[in-house]
Amino acid sequence: MPETAGKTLAAFARLREQIDIALEAVLPPADLEPTELHQAMRYSVLAGGKRIRPILAITSYHSSGGKSDKIFRYASALELLHTYSLIHDDLPCMDDDDFRRGKPTLHKQFSEYIAVLAGDALHALAFEVLAESGNCEVVLEVSRAIGTVGMIGGQVRDVQAEGLEVTLADVENIHRRKTAALITASVKIGALLANAPRPQVKLLEQFGERLGLAFQIVDDILDVEGDFETLGKSVGSDDRLAKATYPKVIGLEASKKIAADLIADAKAALEPFSDREVFWQLADYILARQT
Amino acid sequence: MPETAGKTLAAFARLREQIDIALEAVLPPADLEPTELHQAMRYSVLAGGKRIRPILAITSYHSSGGKSDKIFRYASALELLHTYSLIHDDLPCMDDDDFRRGKPTLHKQFSEYIAVLAGDALHALAFEVLAESGNCEVVLEVSRAIGTVGMIGGQVRDVQAEGLEVTLADVENIHRRKTAALITASVKIGALLANAPRPQVKLLEQFGERLGLAFQIVDDILDVEGDFETLGKSVGSDDRLAKATYPKVIGLEASKKIAADLIADAKAALEPFSDREVFWQLADYILARQT
Repeated sequence: MPETAGKTLAAFARLREQIDIALEAVLPPADLEPTELHQAMRYSVLAGGKRIRPILAITSYHSSGGKSDKIFRYASALELLHTYSLIHDDLPCMDDDDFRRGKPTLHKQFSEYIAVLAGDALHALAFEVLAESGNCEVVLEVSRAIGTVGMIGGQVRDVQAEGLEVTLADVENIHRRKTAALITASVKIGALLANAPRPQVKLLEQFGERLGLAFQIVDDILDVEGDFETLGKSVGSDDRLAKATYPKVIGLEASKKIAADLIADAKAALEPFSDREVFWQLADYILARQT
Repeated sequence: MPETAGKTLAAFARLREQIDIALEAVLPPADLEPTELHQAMRYSVLAGGKRIRPILAITSYHSSGGKSDKIFRYASALELLHTYSLIHDDLPCMDDDDFRRGKPTLHKQFSEYIAVLAGDALHALAFEVLAESGNCEVVLEVSRAIGTVGMIGGQVRDVQAEGLEVTLADVENIHRRKTAALITASVKIGALLANAPRPQVKLLEQFGERLGLAFQIVDDILDVEGDFETLGKSVGSDDRLAKATYPKVIGLEASKKIAADLIADAKAALEPFSDREVFWQLADYILARQT
């Protein structure tokens, strides 16, 4: 591994530790009643994870001149939202998955009703934390990203597309909404919370859109090529559910080419941005990741 | 019916019409894709309903000197949240109800996964609409009311208490969280959006807490004494699920007495408030309601 790449990974690992501390503080304690609900929330959120969305928000905040440590708290809301979406996606009426982050899914470990309500609770808690920032534009940005034009709309189309013949445009639409919308919002709100100038917010937004789409294509590829031990979740489940994925529509090699091109485009979007190096490293990390 | 009561009901009916217009405008159009998701959201929200929470917020706003018509839009977010909670509560893994507001429940009419995601979408949309107000204190107030200290915590305890011996303190705790928290927030955010003085917000909050608890006790009573035709939902379902209710714990007559006392206490909280008449009428309406 080249030396810079090693340093970058170490820096991300340190950020991840700080994010985990923030998540621990944001989540209600496990012994607060209803204890089962709070334990369920903590089980899913604190199961580990790459914490990509908070890392993006924090990086964006710092490189836009933001100085407050509260960014860790606000950024943790993005992980609460991501986790809520995974919990609901894993339900028997959707992807019916048994494993997530190397452990039984929440409805397997607790119960289905607790999984629905723990997801709902994380959703509400995320907005509570974001509202603490006093920045309603941030709340607006995130709520749109996870709404029917974004994440939830993408999830519906994802389920609807199972078993159907889909075009590249269809699967791009699903991925942009289901995954890229919240990743874009993550990059953007870091800049908004740091009161970055509008042109800079716009650049970071373009970076986020391309990175977010590439992220999901890499996810599709890992579902074909990855292994259970490293990923912590079932592999081959896209194939089992006949999901709309890039490899299904255009094959593995073409998918890898598109992901690499998108990462190059994402990096190019930040050419005019002086503090671009850390974002470029993040983009390389997302392309090369094995989990 | 006394003349004032008739006038009051007519005034509430007019407000309800305006709220329905606001809800129609806030909801994504039925022909926007994913159409099934948007149709599902509209099916549940536009199925009618008393619109108590928006009525309370709007009344509170107007009597605190608020003048903008945007209050109808912001207040409609409370109905989106209430509807999301009903959709999830009706799911097979929770109350497993087949009818709501005189029509099949959403998972019966569409599918279970659409019911989960339409609930999630209404939840996100509500925060989008509230954030448009630019008032983060309002977002904070509502997110807490529907979180684990409030609505969701109450819903978990409600399911957990099924079939168990419960005390009056238990059922009061469930009702305060499951129902009264969002009703209290509704009254409160109207005042906050009108920039009412803090002591007045406090009075309205006390009114809301008492009214909200009374509201749920009346709901318990109607589940025993009401009929399907008028209520539009199954009656006797509390008994079927062995729910924790006031009638179960202290009997029907004592429940009616407590509801009436709470309504009197709610009205008393607004004694110092010059514009109290309309709230008193709302409180009387909530006690006497048959649906």
